[in-house]
Amino acid sequence: MNDQPDNNSASIAAARALATQVLAGDRRALARAITLIESTRTDHRRQAETLLEELLPATGRSLRIGISGPPGVGKSTFIEAFGRHAIEQGKRLAVLAVDPTSRLSGGSILGDKTRMEELSRLEQAFIRPTPAGLTLGGVARRTREALLVCEAAGFDLIVVETVGVGQSETAVAEMVDLFLLLLLPGGGDDLQGIKRGIMELADLIVVNKADGDLAAAAERSAADVANALRLMQPLHQAWRPEVLRCSALKNTGIGAIWDRVQAFAAALTAAGEIDARRRAQAKAWLWHELSDNLLDALRAHPHVAQKIADVEASVAAGKMAPASAARAVLAAFLGG
Amino acid sequence: MNDQPDNNSASIAAARALATQVLAGDRRALARAITLIESTRTDHRRQAETLLEELLPATGRSLRIGISGPPGVGKSTFIEAFGRHAIEQGKRLAVLAVDPTSRLSGGSILGDKTRMEELSRLEQAFIRPTPAGLTLGGVARRTREALLVCEAAGFDLIVVETVGVGQSETAVAEMVDLFLLLLLPGGGDDLQGIKRGIMELADLIVVNKADGDLAAAAERSAADVANALRLMQPLHQAWRPEVLRCSALKNTGIGAIWDRVQAFAAALTAAGEIDARRRAQAKAWLWHELSDNLLDALRAHPHVAQKIADVEASVAAGKMAPASAARAVLAAFLGG
Repeated sequence: MNDQPDNNSASIAAARALATQVLAGDRRALARAITLIESTRTDHRRQAETLLEELLPATGRSLRIGISGPPGVGKSTFIEAFGRHAIEQGKRLAVLAVDPTSRLSGGSILGDKTRMEELSRLEQAFIRPTPAGLTLGGVARRTREALLVCEAAGFDLIVVETVGVGQSETAVAEMVDLFLLLLLPGGGDDLQGIKRGIMELADLIVVNKADGDLAAAAERSAADVANALRLMQPLHQAWRPEVLRCSALKNTGIGAIWDRVQAFAAALTAAGEIDARRRAQAKAWLWHELSDNLLDALRAHPHVAQKIADVEASVAAGKMAPASAARAVLAAFLGG
Repeated sequence: MNDQPDNNSASIAAARALATQVLAGDRRALARAITLIESTRTDHRRQAETLLEELLPATGRSLRIGISGPPGVGKSTFIEAFGRHAIEQGKRLAVLAVDPTSRLSGGSILGDKTRMEELSRLEQAFIRPTPAGLTLGGVARRTREALLVCEAAGFDLIVVETVGVGQSETAVAEMVDLFLLLLLPGGGDDLQGIKRGIMELADLIVVNKADGDLAAAAERSAADVANALRLMQPLHQAWRPEVLRCSALKNTGIGAIWDRVQAFAAALTAAGEIDARRRAQAKAWLWHELSDNLLDALRAHPHVAQKIADVEASVAAGKMAPASAARAVLAAFLGG
């Protein structure tokens, strides 16, 4: 397609130069690199691939933390308190976000510098809003690649936050080492309403706003959640999930959380589980990409798109068996 | 491929005749129909599709229940007690199974008539072992289709049991209306070790062996699990998950479980949620099939299989970015 050798060489060279700047710690180059990764233009994708190839050897050195929790739990206040503490311990922190709703709402509530104003002013912190994207898969891919670029740029702690829409927690859990779930103190008989499937992802659960009037409720909620976790098999050999309390606003309990994060990293690194998990995540990502791209190619095929819409309706109405429907669609797609 | 019109017409006619016999309640025809569905031969797949097309209008009338639980929990004893009770209430019951390990172990422990001997002797019961299969997806598809055939044959309760290997609970939850999880009474400080992600699938949780020495432990376990469930958002608008106790061996508590199963069915039917869930499941099945079949076609492609093995290794080692790897593989596959 882009069959102009000079343009190709020039754009490849530009991508390599950008990589060099990122590796040197150039903050604006980092931002441009992530913008390049987020672009859907084919020529930009080629450049982004070159960029990532150059940067890959310098990746893998950070701790990757996913953070989620219900609306109003205080995610940004927490990330700011946690981030400031990490920086005080000498770390350099990047904050990314996965929010597949951002396009619909005209801008994400995540990754907004105004929400983490103090943090955004610190030189050791880099905050980036979620990429926009039509699908969770597309947003997740761009964020995974941005994560790698931030590692290559020298950040040793990467936080990926998510709002918790659809499967976004699962997508984030699949790109991080540690998944931290923030919860509100529950009221007496009120239900916490933890989204199904999320508690099982968590390595650390933190009940926020554990101060003043809510301190007792926070203690009860923490105990309830700890009891629930005791019923479940742990995800890792080397770590049992823990429940902590904090007040991000009052900056209490943050140090203890940091200590447990470090303990998690040490335990799993010693057991070789960080590497094993990252290898499995990379492989799974490859197969997600293959599957997503194949399905995209399918949907984009002129003859096939209408056929899919028709069979989907028949299948949903119980008028056509899914396996037959799939076979018919694929015959149209692969057959010609 | 099978370009012999006479053979095609004959085999289509045979499939239609078999469908008619299944609809008439012919038990041996039912068994032959499921064997046809399990066959991997291309001509048999065509016949199976014709069979399913003929039977689809007669499907949808049963209640579909998935049952799982850890080894030793007493699944077969429970299904026998539950099944006998259902038959006493005038129901006709089919028991199917999803066990992707059956090929490896040389025969599944599930769906074995000798494990449910009394039940297997009753005319109102039909018990079928898991289909063998190389992948969970393949096994699940055959079981879903067998489920539809059993419905068309007039069974009004279909039980699908699973051992709980890998993602088999999720696969079963995606083909049933109600997911029932069996648990053992936990000992004092011993961990139940409920597999992660399973509690969240359950509509009913039943602590079995709640008799004699284990009665007190069963009561505590039931309370613990009920507390854990209270923390989570329910899956359905019309139903909050419940925890019950029973002794399948002593046949106690079975009637209460049956009553709650009926209450679940009534509540979700009234709310239109059974139909909504089945429509969503059928659509999801279609997309699973599309994705699985595309990936199978990919792996079967002569030039591509080796490429995939190479890039998978590079990706796992962090030497190649998954998105680039996927693009390279797909260029080889779709490009020619």
